[in-house]
Amino acid sequence: MRISFIGAGRVAHHLAHVLSQHHHIIQIYSRSLEPAHTLAAQVGATATVNICEINPEIDLVIIAVSDQAIASVIAEVHQHLADVLMVHTSGSTDIEVLAKNHARAGVFYPLQTFSLDREIPWSDTPLFVEANSEADLVLLTKLAYQLSHRVYQYTSAQRLSLHLAAVFACNFSNYCYDMAKQIVDTQQVDFSLLYPLILETANKAVQHDPKQMQTGPAMRGDQNILNMHQQILDDAQREDLKNVYNLMSQQILQSHHPQ
Amino acid sequence: MRISFIGAGRVAHHLAHVLSQHHHIIQIYSRSLEPAHTLAAQVGATATVNICEINPEIDLVIIAVSDQAIASVIAEVHQHLADVLMVHTSGSTDIEVLAKNHARAGVFYPLQTFSLDREIPWSDTPLFVEANSEADLVLLTKLAYQLSHRVYQYTSAQRLSLHLAAVFACNFSNYCYDMAKQIVDTQQVDFSLLYPLILETANKAVQHDPKQMQTGPAMRGDQNILNMHQQILDDAQREDLKNVYNLMSQQILQSHHPQ
Repeated sequence: MRISFIGAGRVAHHLAHVLSQHHHIIQIYSRSLEPAHTLAAQVGATATVNICEINPEIDLVIIAVSDQAIASVIAEVHQHLADVLMVHTSGSTDIEVLAKNHARAGVFYPLQTFSLDREIPWSDTPLFVEANSEADLVLLTKLAYQLSHRVYQYTSAQRLSLHLAAVFACNFSNYCYDMAKQIVDTQQVDFSLLYPLILETANKAVQHDPKQMQTGPAMRGDQNILNMHQQILDDAQREDLKNVYNLMSQQILQSHHPQ
Repeated sequence: MRISFIGAGRVAHHLAHVLSQHHHIIQIYSRSLEPAHTLAAQVGATATVNICEINPEIDLVIIAVSDQAIASVIAEVHQHLADVLMVHTSGSTDIEVLAKNHARAGVFYPLQTFSLDREIPWSDTPLFVEANSEADLVLLTKLAYQLSHRVYQYTSAQRLSLHLAAVFACNFSNYCYDMAKQIVDTQQVDFSLLYPLILETANKAVQHDPKQMQTGPAMRGDQNILNMHQQILDDAQREDLKNVYNLMSQQILQSHHPQ
């Protein structure tokens, strides 16, 4: 397939790299030239900052921009690329945002966290596809199976629920790691001491129900320790950490010791 | 060594099992007979519910009870076991809680999350030892190295800071997984779809600075998605999830987009 990208951020970067193993990446469009150039050079494509210069002689356009930019992008290109299948890669944006302006609309959503300088474990990454026509759904499903053995045809509503859950499971758990690092950093204690705990906690959650695996002072209802920890964060004037500590502890407590 | 346990909960369970490979576990005391009996039978010890029946002809007593019970335990046994080295296993309790009543006091703190029916990865688990005398510190250090290659002599203040960080990195991240599961469960979406994301997020955090690895709508400052997710939790009348979502998103936003 001949594939072009609108967007040159982290999702575009990782998708263009893995797709270039089986397909021709033709163009990378981005509002600024440098990221488009960098990615294009890596995957054998050309770069453009003029969205009207996207060559319509292609099989697929992957729109990998911020959610709020998807609607304006499709408004700009739907006439020019009227016959081309166009997909977005967002968890929370409905297919209708494309479909109301473009007949051959689809979704190609990888449920993964994309940081630069990380190899993505593609073969295990769940991919969710959606399309306006059966033919395009077959095409996207086939493309997805080249990347991963976990391909699902989900509705926009199911995808949205997954994305919201992913914010909790990934973005918020990562912020918990970040807060933990801030706490040990102030005592010149090495954050790497927490690595076995972080990995064991994640491994437990993928082998058991996380609620059954909950540990810690709030789960035990150990009010002395809760008070002591709150006092430490108070003394350190870390209102931000204390607010998270209080809210999370209170909810864990209520969840494990209902009235 | 001849070792007895006060407490038969999860920490006692896992410690007694691993220590029984190299040492004699003599007695397990617990307030209720059943947990004491169960553990004692597994490690070749005898069970007792009478704390005065603990045989003083031993080398070490491990107090693995809730933090709030440590002081009353030592008050009950310090005369009877006056010559025996006694350690607690708590992250947040100062050695002084034992030492003020007992000369041979120590700490043996494993930085790990202990659920039943999980094998503990002992050799990678950091162990923190502290003792009132140099001789006992040497003894505890040697014992610790039989379990793990990561043994540290930390003060009670450093240990407290680590334990507080562990609450964020382990207990709160696990609660994030729990909340994620609740969200997908309501849509009959399989929680296992999030496993690759959970594992990749944890793997990233132990290879990079978690702050640099932060992803998601709050990190990107994507207010449309934040509003949409808040609306979903509002419509679902999940005040609890919405409070966590708002607080965490607001702090991630501020941390990555300072004024």
